[in-house]
Amino acid sequence: MSKVSPLVDSLIEAFQCLPGVGPKSAQRMTLHLLERNKNAGLVLSNTLEMALEKVDKCKECRIFTENDICEICSNEKRNSKILCIVESVSDVFAIEQSNQFNGHYFILHGHLSPIDDIGPEELALNLLFSKVKKNNVNEVILATGSTLEGETTSHFIFDNLKSVEELKITKLARGVPLGGELEYVDRGTIMHALSDRQILKNDS
Amino acid sequence: MSKVSPLVDSLIEAFQCLPGVGPKSAQRMTLHLLERNKNAGLVLSNTLEMALEKVDKCKECRIFTENDICEICSNEKRNSKILCIVESVSDVFAIEQSNQFNGHYFILHGHLSPIDDIGPEELALNLLFSKVKKNNVNEVILATGSTLEGETTSHFIFDNLKSVEELKITKLARGVPLGGELEYVDRGTIMHALSDRQILKNDS
Repeated sequence: MSKVSPLVDSLIEAFQCLPGVGPKSAQRMTLHLLERNKNAGLVLSNTLEMALEKVDKCKECRIFTENDICEICSNEKRNSKILCIVESVSDVFAIEQSNQFNGHYFILHGHLSPIDDIGPEELALNLLFSKVKKNNVNEVILATGSTLEGETTSHFIFDNLKSVEELKITKLARGVPLGGELEYVDRGTIMHALSDRQILKNDS
Repeated sequence: MSKVSPLVDSLIEAFQCLPGVGPKSAQRMTLHLLERNKNAGLVLSNTLEMALEKVDKCKECRIFTENDICEICSNEKRNSKILCIVESVSDVFAIEQSNQFNGHYFILHGHLSPIDDIGPEELALNLLFSKVKKNNVNEVILATGSTLEGETTSHFIFDNLKSVEELKITKLARGVPLGGELEYVDRGTIMHALSDRQILKNDS
């Protein structure tokens, strides 16, 4: 540490709570704000304080919002009969950017992981199951990560919803990503791309 | 942008004032704090606010401090007769880490750059020159960066101090860095390393 100013040292320390920020970057951030950008720093500290105080989970879908119900859930132009289940808010951002989805979301904020004491309760799965029934949802899209934990979580949700009548359950397609060269695509993805191959012409 | 919550969007925007932080990292930081680390986020916002309000330049050496005079300048064990002149506070941190220097510093907070309207006044050079004379400094170490602007700044300071009596003026040694393989050292550095080569044995 610098031993130059306790307050500067504390700020360097505090910046390291951010993901991907070590001592060097934290020092750079601290000096940048103090040297060149005090105003932006003040905006950051105020916005951060306000967001931490006011932003909480939407009562319907558990996305972050400063209101009781988020803008997606309260938007009447969106289809509340289709529910896309994702692990985190960043997944919502990614899907929204594709402009391909006009339904509602449900954010688990994690995946089932007994080792870390994360069970159905932590993911608010009861809220999800009752929501599906109460709102007469037509389709649930399972869009958890394609990791072991993500698949397990999907499977658990599927098991609990498969008996609901008139409910379609789907999952995201797995395959070669757009712009992906086969040479650099991993084995598991190629296995999925082959087994889920699409028919272009079928005369047999 | 996410269009999900204006406050979350503002925070993602605000994080981008930090050096090296683009939209993706800013989003990651925002969600990380909201999802997992609200307490650390509060500490960060408070520390940042306090540092921006209280930290200013030391009246003697222009390093950042929350007091009038910084801990280095007010430390009686340090030698105030040796003055190391650097461009930025991060240079002080780097030199302090080497544990090789026990004198005082003077921080320019930049280098001479007429294009950006940075002249002797912005670097507080008058404060430096009067300090050298007033404190009867024995040695000034020029430790600005080895860029064109850094060298120009060093030269300007040298020109203004060379007539001061009983003042030694030195600059940092240039050469091959520790652990540097010659193969990867740039041409300019090798030129310096050759012309400043040290004599190990001289029988000629």
